[in-house]
Amino acid sequence: MEAVFQKISTTFREKSSLAKVLIAATVGGGSIIGYYSQASSYDDLSFADSSMTDKKKKRIVVLGTGWAGTSFLKNLKNSSYDVQVISPRNYFAFTPLLPSVTCGTVEPRSIVEPIRNIVKNKNVKIQFWEAECFKIDPENKKVYCRSNVKDNSNENAELVVDYDYLVIAIGARPNTFNIPGVEENCHFLKEVEDAKNIRRSIVDCFERAALPNLTEEERKKILHFVVVGGGPTGVEFAAELHDYVNEDLVKLYPYVKEAVKITLLEATDHILGMFDKRITDFAEEKFQRDGIDVKTGSMVTKVSDKAISTKELKNGKESTMPYGMVVWSTGIGTRPVIMDFMKQIGQANRRVLATDEWLRVQGYDNIYALGDSATINQRRVMEDISDIFSKADKNKSGKLSVKEFRGLLDDICERYPQVKLYLKHKKMNNLVDLLKESKGNSVSESVEVNLENFKAALAHVDSQMKSLPATAQVAAQQGWYLADCFNRKEECEKNPEGPLRIRGEGRHRFHPFRYKHFGQFAPLGGEQTAAQLPGDWVSIGHSSQWLWYSVYASKQVSWRTRSLVISDWGRRFIFGRDSSCI
Amino acid sequence: MEAVFQKISTTFREKSSLAKVLIAATVGGGSIIGYYSQASSYDDLSFADSSMTDKKKKRIVVLGTGWAGTSFLKNLKNSSYDVQVISPRNYFAFTPLLPSVTCGTVEPRSIVEPIRNIVKNKNVKIQFWEAECFKIDPENKKVYCRSNVKDNSNENAELVVDYDYLVIAIGARPNTFNIPGVEENCHFLKEVEDAKNIRRSIVDCFERAALPNLTEEERKKILHFVVVGGGPTGVEFAAELHDYVNEDLVKLYPYVKEAVKITLLEATDHILGMFDKRITDFAEEKFQRDGIDVKTGSMVTKVSDKAISTKELKNGKESTMPYGMVVWSTGIGTRPVIMDFMKQIGQANRRVLATDEWLRVQGYDNIYALGDSATINQRRVMEDISDIFSKADKNKSGKLSVKEFRGLLDDICERYPQVKLYLKHKKMNNLVDLLKESKGNSVSESVEVNLENFKAALAHVDSQMKSLPATAQVAAQQGWYLADCFNRKEECEKNPEGPLRIRGEGRHRFHPFRYKHFGQFAPLGGEQTAAQLPGDWVSIGHSSQWLWYSVYASKQVSWRTRSLVISDWGRRFIFGRDSSCI
Repeated sequence: MEAVFQKISTTFREKSSLAKVLIAATVGGGSIIGYYSQASSYDDLSFADSSMTDKKKKRIVVLGTGWAGTSFLKNLKNSSYDVQVISPRNYFAFTPLLPSVTCGTVEPRSIVEPIRNIVKNKNVKIQFWEAECFKIDPENKKVYCRSNVKDNSNENAELVVDYDYLVIAIGARPNTFNIPGVEENCHFLKEVEDAKNIRRSIVDCFERAALPNLTEEERKKILHFVVVGGGPTGVEFAAELHDYVNEDLVKLYPYVKEAVKITLLEATDHILGMFDKRITDFAEEKFQRDGIDVKTGSMVTKVSDKAISTKELKNGKESTMPYGMVVWSTGIGTRPVIMDFMKQIGQANRRVLATDEWLRVQGYDNIYALGDSATINQRRVMEDISDIFSKADKNKSGKLSVKEFRGLLDDICERYPQVKLYLKHKKMNNLVDLLKESKGNSVSESVEVNLENFKAALAHVDSQMKSLPATAQVAAQQGWYLADCFNRKEECEKNPEGPLRIRGEGRHRFHPFRYKHFGQFAPLGGEQTAAQLPGDWVSIGHSSQWLWYSVYASKQVSWRTRSLVISDWGRRFIFGRDSSCI
Repeated sequence: MEAVFQKISTTFREKSSLAKVLIAATVGGGSIIGYYSQASSYDDLSFADSSMTDKKKKRIVVLGTGWAGTSFLKNLKNSSYDVQVISPRNYFAFTPLLPSVTCGTVEPRSIVEPIRNIVKNKNVKIQFWEAECFKIDPENKKVYCRSNVKDNSNENAELVVDYDYLVIAIGARPNTFNIPGVEENCHFLKEVEDAKNIRRSIVDCFERAALPNLTEEERKKILHFVVVGGGPTGVEFAAELHDYVNEDLVKLYPYVKEAVKITLLEATDHILGMFDKRITDFAEEKFQRDGIDVKTGSMVTKVSDKAISTKELKNGKESTMPYGMVVWSTGIGTRPVIMDFMKQIGQANRRVLATDEWLRVQGYDNIYALGDSATINQRRVMEDISDIFSKADKNKSGKLSVKEFRGLLDDICERYPQVKLYLKHKKMNNLVDLLKESKGNSVSESVEVNLENFKAALAHVDSQMKSLPATAQVAAQQGWYLADCFNRKEECEKNPEGPLRIRGEGRHRFHPFRYKHFGQFAPLGGEQTAAQLPGDWVSIGHSSQWLWYSVYASKQVSWRTRSLVISDWGRRFIFGRDSSCI
């Protein structure tokens, strides 16, 4: 028995942290059999007064504790920096499980971990301030923040923080497309608070509909749940809600079952448009079987307090449906503080803050932006075509031989990733083939091209430029990448590892950020999940659901959240989902 | 392996309910080994339309889903009634664990169970409406209620419900003693929402105090936690908070540790005044060692948004302390709807609604009030003394022989429980001794007393009248008792089982309610609990803490909450308490 506990305890204990380990093993009969092991107490005071800040150290200020920010903090190992983290949330939330939280499959507290816990045992000095940044001043290298707790005199304390490097990772806000009534009448699904509100709201609807003095029509209105947006989040929420109603609520509110209706509105022609067609088809069929009313090609025009108005894109037909609750999940918009920042730095005409491939905000060497708060503005080959040509044309002959070009091949492919995609698309092995093609197929290695030929060969390369999706996966990889750059800054200053500078001398210090796609899940309810993995590998059904469980459990930020999430799943299997209105 | 799961599964499954049982057993490695057993699906639709109500059945309306109401519903087995439950909370909450919820030792959802779940499989038709009663109309046998969910048009639906029997079990509200500023600036600790707000507020204080631009004085003010009321709840909260700070928060906010101060204010001379002196002393000493500042004999006079003012009862000295958070836990007051009801039935001059020993509201045979919303107005012996005498004096001789009196003894002791307490106090065996005493010690069995002697003998009996404490234990026993009366109504109508009616003919239908005290706990933090059990048995320390764990686990309303509470305790041992501000 002892040995078993010992083993479990070892599994639980994190590499070097966690002060106490006790495994509660039996849950029956009101007693606990425990194994207790004192591991180590904390010894470094990560959070010290800012006045004690070492003046010689460069100060990094990180805004945000989401996927990008937390991933950056977790990977940062260079103790020559002094880090201050500023966020209105003192925790990291595992957002992919938010749809599960809306229906109580997973508890909100199981998917959050205090950021102070995450950075507790690092060798880097990291301080955290719970505050929201409302202004970035890039000229004076300052950020202006406001505590989100009102003090007794009902004022929010303000805070001005200086930085040497600024890492913007504050995410995005829901996009309402300025459709009237959305802000006031819809639930969003971006934060833990949102998920909690939705959960409460669902139970409220059921309790309200159970009251005796209602007409059948009123009851149907109250139990009409509308989900706007057929992306992975909206689809997963609709599926979760369907399961919640049919597995749990129906046992407690049988009378109202017939009145429940779930409608999923999507403006494009298909739900889960970013997935493989097989998945889209399966999802649409499953939802039809489940009785979820999927309305594609349907655009929301207005949301009043009682009804939601839509317009069919095909025929322009407008209609209005009364509803009990609307969840809005249609994409992301830019936060006000970023919009203000964009105006200051001359990006006012853009929709999203732009960075270069090294995640630097264009024009500012010391400001980085990652995750949903920015997009990488990838450099076009055609913009640099003359520079590429003259860089490759080493003997300055005005002609580029295949041999000369070969010397620059790898650097070009790294600097302009669209080139590789284009070659793959054309089913070619390397850039030289492209060059050859432009001169006819039968030419030899010794072919030479001039600038015009070169331009023609690469003319369509930029068509393969793709912006990255706004997912946790991208944000986390960006955070990890940026921390890595900071970790090896001195090293790479001496030995730059990036591609050749096309319009300058030497090499770029770092490799540009490159996203690796590990696949994506779309849970569809009823213990079925669709998974699209790299290499167009598609899997749908119960086995993918178990893959989903495994991946999401293993990706948890701490052993605490991992065990909580898993025990929540177990609790749901055993006891169902709770419907107390708390 | 299978056998083990089978066994666990049997343990988990409730007597006849629960549709699915799956035991999630391993929590490591991201996979779940499961045992799945389909037990039975629900088959009775407990919640049907009120219009389908069987008109012949008598309607019981129960107000409230706290200890008294839930205990009543759980024990009600007589299917000849039609029950409607009305409460603004659709769940039962295990309130003794509320102090644990304030610091995250136990999660709020672990101590609640939907009332619909609790009554799901009963043979009695029980309907639930989530609404708050705002008016009781005893003349027309109606209650007026308001849904506590606003509908889309921002109005609360109203509901009028007829009853034949009304069970009032709506509990009490916190008592502010009309001290200015309490309502606006203090946290209470009566509802689950209160506990959640306190938890959030504690973390907010720590985050606010961690901000860099504060003076030491400001920081100390923010981290000054004041608890008003030295009863079991206040003391337990202070102890929990001390543990939370010293076991968990100190690891994440080491810099602010020195600034934390907990003050416990109590108006009387000792905290835990209702407990044995040994417990009081131990608690006061422990708190002193822990650095909790206990101020007894200190009355709060005012609470502003920044400071709390107190007055020392001994010397009238007034003082004012700045604070970060105040928790107010000083006793209970009457809810407005009860006060209105009391006015209607001529109890306007009373502080609390009065019932007789059968829990009936005085003057109304069909209205019962239990739990914290009422007190039993015990009948005085001296009020009935002449009636008792003439009832006992069977031969109407004007003289009462010991033999005659003996015939009425048991009934008197049952009808007037203070008599038994008085005898115990006087160390006498029975009432006859009392009678003998009044005539001198040497008299024989054949002694006779007249009315004057009789009055003199019983003159001090009423001094032993005690009102019941406002605890969960009392409320639960009252609910159980009342349900039992309804269950056996027909049976007891034929064969009354109560004591002889003193001022009427025949016997009372039921035994009057009698409270059985099973002891009380006072957790003092640091895994130490004081327990006072019947027979003045006192136990303090770690062993009582384990007794506390066992009792509280076993008293949970369902296997779901039981396993959740126990796993919360385990989680706390392993990972500590969470401090995310959600």
